[in-house]
Amino acid sequence: MTPQLEEVLGHPAAGWQRTPAPLDDVALSSRVRLARNVSDLPFSPTLTSEQAKELLARVEKAIHGETVMGTFSFDRLEDLSAVDRRVLVEKHLISPMHARDARGAVFLRADEAVSGMVFEEDHIRLQTMCPGLQLADAWELASRLDDVLEEQLEWAFSEELGYLSTCPTNVGTAMRASAMLHLPALTWTGRIEALLAGLAKVGVVVRGMYGEGSAAAGGIFQISNQTSLGQSERDLAEHLQSVCHQVIEHERRAREALYEEMREAVEDRVGRAYGILTNARIMSSSEALPLLSDLRLGVVLGILPSLTLDAWSELLVLTRSGFLQRQEDADSPQKRDVVRATMLRRRLAASLREGPDERQ
Amino acid sequence: MTPQLEEVLGHPAAGWQRTPAPLDDVALSSRVRLARNVSDLPFSPTLTSEQAKELLARVEKAIHGETVMGTFSFDRLEDLSAVDRRVLVEKHLISPMHARDARGAVFLRADEAVSGMVFEEDHIRLQTMCPGLQLADAWELASRLDDVLEEQLEWAFSEELGYLSTCPTNVGTAMRASAMLHLPALTWTGRIEALLAGLAKVGVVVRGMYGEGSAAAGGIFQISNQTSLGQSERDLAEHLQSVCHQVIEHERRAREALYEEMREAVEDRVGRAYGILTNARIMSSSEALPLLSDLRLGVVLGILPSLTLDAWSELLVLTRSGFLQRQEDADSPQKRDVVRATMLRRRLAASLREGPDERQ
Repeated sequence: MTPQLEEVLGHPAAGWQRTPAPLDDVALSSRVRLARNVSDLPFSPTLTSEQAKELLARVEKAIHGETVMGTFSFDRLEDLSAVDRRVLVEKHLISPMHARDARGAVFLRADEAVSGMVFEEDHIRLQTMCPGLQLADAWELASRLDDVLEEQLEWAFSEELGYLSTCPTNVGTAMRASAMLHLPALTWTGRIEALLAGLAKVGVVVRGMYGEGSAAAGGIFQISNQTSLGQSERDLAEHLQSVCHQVIEHERRAREALYEEMREAVEDRVGRAYGILTNARIMSSSEALPLLSDLRLGVVLGILPSLTLDAWSELLVLTRSGFLQRQEDADSPQKRDVVRATMLRRRLAASLREGPDERQ
Repeated sequence: MTPQLEEVLGHPAAGWQRTPAPLDDVALSSRVRLARNVSDLPFSPTLTSEQAKELLARVEKAIHGETVMGTFSFDRLEDLSAVDRRVLVEKHLISPMHARDARGAVFLRADEAVSGMVFEEDHIRLQTMCPGLQLADAWELASRLDDVLEEQLEWAFSEELGYLSTCPTNVGTAMRASAMLHLPALTWTGRIEALLAGLAKVGVVVRGMYGEGSAAAGGIFQISNQTSLGQSERDLAEHLQSVCHQVIEHERRAREALYEEMREAVEDRVGRAYGILTNARIMSSSEALPLLSDLRLGVVLGILPSLTLDAWSELLVLTRSGFLQRQEDADSPQKRDVVRATMLRRRLAASLREGPDERQ
């Protein structure tokens, strides 16, 4: 494993994850993924092992060492343990599908803002991450990375259709832009259902935090564009940005209304989450996520003023099973639940000088 | 209302409630109740209003002012509000049945160790309370109070049957001795069921904290004698004392085994109870009781060394709805739940200098 990847796997906080960021009271992150395929090789599903090696070698050569965008590490998945790959998934650097096939590779910059999967559903999936809601910035960054690679690789491209991809639904811009939004108030009040139904009508897809098929636990939703054909990348990013902005406004109003009309219930929920997270000795990841969600709501509403959003973002990664298993050598779920609880108590004790505010 | 009763209603801690007391790691209190009826008046169910007034006047005269046992207050229930009576029930000084009929009266000593209901199912029910498991002491105290009253009142008594009472099941000693035991480990491990079935076979009745028909919430059980005919009071008290002793030993062994085999689970449960009680903003009485039960287990096991059993006993009364309503003027259940949570946070912050011990 490269030292740069080793460093990334050992730290819960990504370099790009810095607050304050635009609309970060609701938006956790913005991401752009571009699917690219090399023109003189077959698409991934029909690639031979020899051709796959050839693909990896070419991408490694193109990205390796210093580029105008910074220094990239390049690691073959076969050199990584199952736990290492799991952490990459938890950090959203590779997809669960990519983690399962050891023939692929991953490249990334130390700040994790720019990365790529090699030999996934497409030959290459480029990815950029920005904090808060900054889809245009994420697109700019992705476009620059695309340019860097295109200097040495020739993409499968049709003047008529745009970028070609393995799955026809990605043909065109071959771009998927998405934002991770924290919508606890809309979830709590049950208004999320109608909102999601409305989003489907404007070409937007809503998923849970870990993509397709994952539940929206803890009120965290991934909102992404559905169509990639017939619009420019910039238009797509701007459309999604505008949709997300509206969702964020809905969430903000729902939070205000909740806190005004049911202050005690909101403070009760935040207080209980704080009390349990700082005192439990056994904690599963599925229990931790909704409690952390309540904690973030408390931070944003000023009920937990001494916790920072950056410290919170670290907890989100720290509590994941793969990360815990890698750091603490907790190899059974039972051990992990104890280690997770211990870690949460210590981290929260360190970052929270005081508990929830007493307002009454 | 007499000033002495006013004082009692305003304080959560009873004077008798002092630790250390024998076996107080499990036994909360020991109580003896004696049923007595005046010989020349009909039993309560057929007493006319005039006769009831006559009964109250006679008892007041007998108990009033200084006696060899101390100074007693005497209050007619018609002079007390519904909330005052509710607090008397919560403090186990009168029965729920007694509280419903305003024609009765209550007398008590300032430390609440010695008291009596007048015009309940029987003319008089004397009651004595001791901390921990001290059934013989409670019986001695009751017997002395009985002597004091007998100097001025003549009891309905048959040489053949003993003391006569309204309900034939109480005829004989007309005594009910009981101990309040905290059995969280036996409850947690499910071993309580077999134990309760066994107790029924040795003439012992098990009820919840508020007597007949009340559930054993929070693992607190009231264990009392079933028969009153054919045995002396002392024998009955000693038999119950010995049964309770065995139950206490079972509970102690269950606690040790639990803590040895599942230390994290025990600390987790105590820690969560502490975390929720010190941070919730809304707390119902039915939620508070099991959490307080977990807290007491934590105190006894040394997980929460800075909380005293005396402070804990106060919380048990403080969280009751009547007491809260009387002190804080919280007249709706919603308001009470907020006041209860606030009170718990403040009391626990005041009595707990630190949270659960970190052993690992």
